Amino acid sequence: MSPNKSISPDDEGDVGRRIYRLIVELYPICRSITGDGYRQTMRLLQSRVPLQIHEVPTGTPLFDWTAPREWNIRDAFVKNARGEKIIDFQDSNLHVVSYSVPVRAVVPLAELKKHLFTMPEHPDWIPYRTSYYREDWGFCLSHRCYEALKEGDYEVVIDSTLGPGSLTYGELYLPGEREDEILISAHSCHPSLANDNLSGIGLAVELARHLSSVPRRYSYRFLFIPGTIGAIGWLCLNESSVPRIKGGLVITGVGDRGAVTYKRSRRGNTGIDRAAALVLQQSGQPYRLLDFHPYGYDERQFCSPGFNLPVGRFSRTPYGEYPEYHTSADDLGFVGPDALGDSFAKIRRILDVMEHDRTYVNQSPKGEPQLGKRGLYSSPGPRELALLWVLNLSDGGNRLLDIAERSGVDFSDIKEAADVLLRAGLLAECEPSGPLAARK
Amino acid sequence: MSPNKSISPDDEGDVGRRIYRLIVELYPICRSITGDGYRQTMRLLQSRVPLQIHEVPTGTPLFDWTAPREWNIRDAFVKNARGEKIIDFQDSNLHVVSYSVPVRAVVPLAELKKHLFTMPEHPDWIPYRTSYYREDWGFCLSHRCYEALKEGDYEVVIDSTLGPGSLTYGELYLPGEREDEILISAHSCHPSLANDNLSGIGLAVELARHLSSVPRRYSYRFLFIPGTIGAIGWLCLNESSVPRIKGGLVITGVGDRGAVTYKRSRRGNTGIDRAAALVLQQSGQPYRLLDFHPYGYDERQFCSPGFNLPVGRFSRTPYGEYPEYHTSADDLGFVGPDALGDSFAKIRRILDVMEHDRTYVNQSPKGEPQLGKRGLYSSPGPRELALLWVLNLSDGGNRLLDIAERSGVDFSDIKEAADVLLRAGLLAECEPSGPLAARK
Amino acid sequence: MSPNKSISPDDEGDVGRRIYRLIVELYPICRSITGDGYRQTMRLLQSRVPLQIHEVPTGTPLFDWTAPREWNIRDAFVKNARGEKIIDFQDSNLHVVSYSVPVRAVVPLAELKKHLFTMPEHPDWIPYRTSYYREDWGFCLSHRCYEALKEGDYEVVIDSTLGPGSLTYGELYLPGEREDEILISAHSCHPSLANDNLSGIGLAVELARHLSSVPRRYSYRFLFIPGTIGAIGWLCLNESSVPRIKGGLVITGVGDRGAVTYKRSRRGNTGIDRAAALVLQQSGQPYRLLDFHPYGYDERQFCSPGFNLPVGRFSRTPYGEYPEYHTSADDLGFVGPDALGDSFAKIRRILDVMEHDRTYVNQSPKGEPQLGKRGLYSSPGPRELALLWVLNLSDGGNRLLDIAERSGVDFSDIKEAADVLLRAGLLAECEPSGPLAARK
Repeated sequence: MSPNKSISPDDEGDVGRRIYRLIVELYPICRSITGDGYRQTMRLLQSRVPLQIHEVPTGTPLFDWTAPREWNIRDAFVKNARGEKIIDFQDSNLHVVSYSVPVRAVVPLAELKKHLFTMPEHPDWIPYRTSYYREDWGFCLSHRCYEALKEGDYEVVIDSTLGPGSLTYGELYLPGEREDEILISAHSCHPSLANDNLSGIGLAVELARHLSSVPRRYSYRFLFIPGTIGAIGWLCLNESSVPRIKGGLVITGVGDRGAVTYKRSRRGNTGIDRAAALVLQQSGQPYRLLDFHPYGYDERQFCSPGFNLPVGRFSRTPYGEYPEYHTSADDLGFVGPDALGDSFAKIRRILDVMEHDRTYVNQSPKGEPQLGKRGLYSSPGPRELALLWVLNLSDGGNRLLDIAERSGVDFSDIKEAADVLLRAGLLAECEPSGPLAARK
Repeated sequence: MSPNKSISPDDEGDVGRRIYRLIVELYPICRSITGDGYRQTMRLLQSRVPLQIHEVPTGTPLFDWTAPREWNIRDAFVKNARGEKIIDFQDSNLHVVSYSVPVRAVVPLAELKKHLFTMPEHPDWIPYRTSYYREDWGFCLSHRCYEALKEGDYEVVIDSTLGPGSLTYGELYLPGEREDEILISAHSCHPSLANDNLSGIGLAVELARHLSSVPRRYSYRFLFIPGTIGAIGWLCLNESSVPRIKGGLVITGVGDRGAVTYKRSRRGNTGIDRAAALVLQQSGQPYRLLDFHPYGYDERQFCSPGFNLPVGRFSRTPYGEYPEYHTSADDLGFVGPDALGDSFAKIRRILDVMEHDRTYVNQSPKGEPQLGKRGLYSSPGPRELALLWVLNLSDGGNRLLDIAERSGVDFSDIKEAADVLLRAGLLAECEPSGPLAARK
Repeated sequence: MSPNKSISPDDEGDVGRRIYRLIVELYPICRSITGDGYRQTMRLLQSRVPLQIHEVPTGTPLFDWTAPREWNIRDAFVKNARGEKIIDFQDSNLHVVSYSVPVRAVVPLAELKKHLFTMPEHPDWIPYRTSYYREDWGFCLSHRCYEALKEGDYEVVIDSTLGPGSLTYGELYLPGEREDEILISAHSCHPSLANDNLSGIGLAVELARHLSSVPRRYSYRFLFIPGTIGAIGWLCLNESSVPRIKGGLVITGVGDRGAVTYKRSRRGNTGIDRAAALVLQQSGQPYRLLDFHPYGYDERQFCSPGFNLPVGRFSRTPYGEYPEYHTSADDLGFVGPDALGDSFAKIRRILDVMEHDRTYVNQSPKGEPQLGKRGLYSSPGPRELALLWVLNLSDGGNRLLDIAERSGVDFSDIKEAADVLLRAGLLAECEPSGPLAARK
């Protein structure tokens, strides 16, 4: 992984298209927080990366929670009096409220309506609904379809099972020079929703493929987990290895056309937070930084006070701010290879900063060293400025990230200057006293 | 005192009207920093609250100062050559410069004019003047009246006494669960001036009545003292109990129609400063925060470097910014029940924050606790956000005030969430390591 | 040096005219980083101030550098085929690239052009060029003259010498009450360039004259050194005395009509940085503050990480921002007595703050002392405010500079108030625990 060459638009395009193709493959599968759809998804990812698939038996205590019963569904529909299927799970897996208990009944319209969910403000869209922890059943449908329902009896069938089984998740560990880890987490429990979060799954897979092919200072751990219960479960079952996490990203909603949004970790100023802010600021493109708040995706678990990990969230448009969120309109047309490729490139640059952020000490600190006699001085320009900044601030108290922040010089130029000066014997690496995480 | 219910507009109106009625009663009395008018004022307050009245004998050393001679006045006038009273103390006690020495003389106009004070820019108003520490006499009058004065001799009578006696002040102590005190101070030495500071006296009386009827974590001490010398005197005579003061407010000028102004303590970031800023910010109404400056009212004494107390000042329009200040135009029409009630409600909310600002520790800090199984999870909304904020930040290092500041959630919602979580066993109170005062 | 009287416009005018006259005298001399022009300049300064002239032999190791060979030049010209001098060193010493090696040759135009430098965007100006550390020769000329050159052979003569000798610099030390030093540095190696840096030389000379005539708490050291190598050389040869430097200014480009620019030291918040910011802010005139960056003038050496001195830079328009920089247009018309006098006055005020910035302790800290009985209280006004601010903040933790910053009161008023209170016995001086330099 070279920090000195940014990914070229062509590479971005290639990567973006590869991510998009994976999304297309995953899209039809009916996932929930447990069940065969989840397993099928994990096995499909194994065709790309050597994912380990874990099964956590129903009933396993997971801190304040318990691994839930496993839910599976074969079919579901609602038929009108004429025997026509007016709602059909085979058309869209969003039609059934996730974790619906099995039902076989004939009910009048008034009774049926208590179990129907629509979006009047978007009459053609099907909403996405779940009922994980309260036993219930229901159907989601377009408001237009709902309004066409006539009085009469309806046959309702949900051919699902809810019982002992297990909670499934995928994990991939890429060892690096150090045991210190960077965590990449994507929730993988949503059915046919492209941005939330097939985009995150796809990006994480490509990132794992890329990182597995380059030298790594950090070790990397990828989690493909069901939201909330998966994050809590992984933390519980792997508590002893949690302290090795020195940075991380929850990746979700990275395929829409909006600007990138980075949500800071609870600590707010850790290495990953500063790396993300620097990369986005130096990208020259619009972006937003959000302070931590204890709602959203799995960053709320990683940043719970008992762990307080340096884990931020990388998204494009935040989930509350696009109407397609958690509806059938979050489909394959809502995400695109360009946005996916751009998200990938920016995350890669953030991780580049993490990988190459070292502390050096100027070996000729009294006055400037004579760059000319070492062939390092040409004419004043960005390259020489980077050399001067690195020399001036390399006093053992500044990382390259500090230098990039203070100078406004692009991190990759700062890193290149440090490499040049290191080769010239003008810098020596210094073991920073503390961990890389929180600073300033 | 429940922090969960803000005072309703009707209550505000009631309180405002009660304060206004007290102002009306106090208005005619001629007060100065000593004397019978001061005593009469304190006795009138005793009809509302069980005030203790203290007398400090003339000559008592009070740090760098000395209790002054007592001043009393029976009558004063200026008569023209025709024997007509053209200035008459009976018409307005502002006519005589406070602490004027006794005079009985006939003087020509030129001599008289050396002792006359007017406001040419407001020709109908009588200014308010004092000469506490320099022996002199004088009359204040409208500029219109001054300009009508004709050449000739004038009979001048000031029937006052200035001699050994005492300095009077009122004090009320309401014990609470703790010996830690909150100080409420109102200067009470001004004659017929409604906003400065009958409004402060009246508000403090109503506040004492209210606080005496509710449970109190803090003890409260109310001071009705003459400005400057009274504050210095009280500090000197009660020096050993000063360290118990953990917060306080100088209350003055709280009846005019301007926006509320809070002046921070010298330390600038104490509990009371932050509580005031939070309440005013969350009120949704215009307000101003001023940094400490060593002039103004008695906050300059409480915040002198030898005490440096966490005492701020609560006012509406600051004294330098309304032309009616220290003139006959600061009359019963200049203040009103609405502004008084609003000031009362805001001060009560500030004290509510002080009373209920605790530090808790999340008892299920690893991942989020499962709110659903405790019946605490409904749908996402302000109530659930408050629960999540309190759970996430309750790590022993954040008070509720910190949580309210960081989250932007109303303090009363944060407090309610903490109560709910405490009852559910998800929080435990934690004794904060330091005092509540200065933080950050 | 009285901090209480600011320099009057007339004094400024006198000083500005004296500086300008010295610039006029120095302007024709051909200076470089070594050589007789430099010596002649130093001797001319000795007619104003008792400068010590140091000679550092060629080859002396100076940290990572070495004292260079000495360069001298007697004459130089280019003649066309008709024997006419078309470029003549006697017309302008900018015509020859500084440190040009000796040349006597006849070359065709194409060859000559490889050694010619012009400014096409300013066709009448001669640029200023050097080649200190790479052996070369060259001529600078106006682009208009360059474009008139015709094909043919040209006689080129540079009658220079480059060989063993020494590097010359001037130094002036003014002892004060303390050994703690303030450093004033002006690079003196440029030929006929008025603003850069004859203005700095001239201002430093007048400053030395002024400071030698007044009491000094600090000792002052003035350096008239060649840029870069001179600063590095002085630091190397005087390393043991460097820790005595408690503040300093690099003075350059102080004669143009632009607003004053202060560039902070690397530490950014030292005494001199805060004094400069305060003086410029309180001047009521436009100014700019720049954060440190490791390029520019000799501040880059004084602020190298091995020294990290509290030395800032005082200029008017920064060097990169006026087109006349390093050209023949930086001439005697580009600088003026008014700007020079204004720069002098502001630097003097900055040094006044350094000289008079003490820490006091209020001797009557409980409540306000009674100013009236000491005749210190008149009517409320700026003078009383200054007294109250000094009394309130003099708790041993604030210098007068802190008080001026926090209060917004002019430093000279704060200083005067402190003097008055000291005489009244209300303040005592306190030895600050740390050095004066970095604070906050």
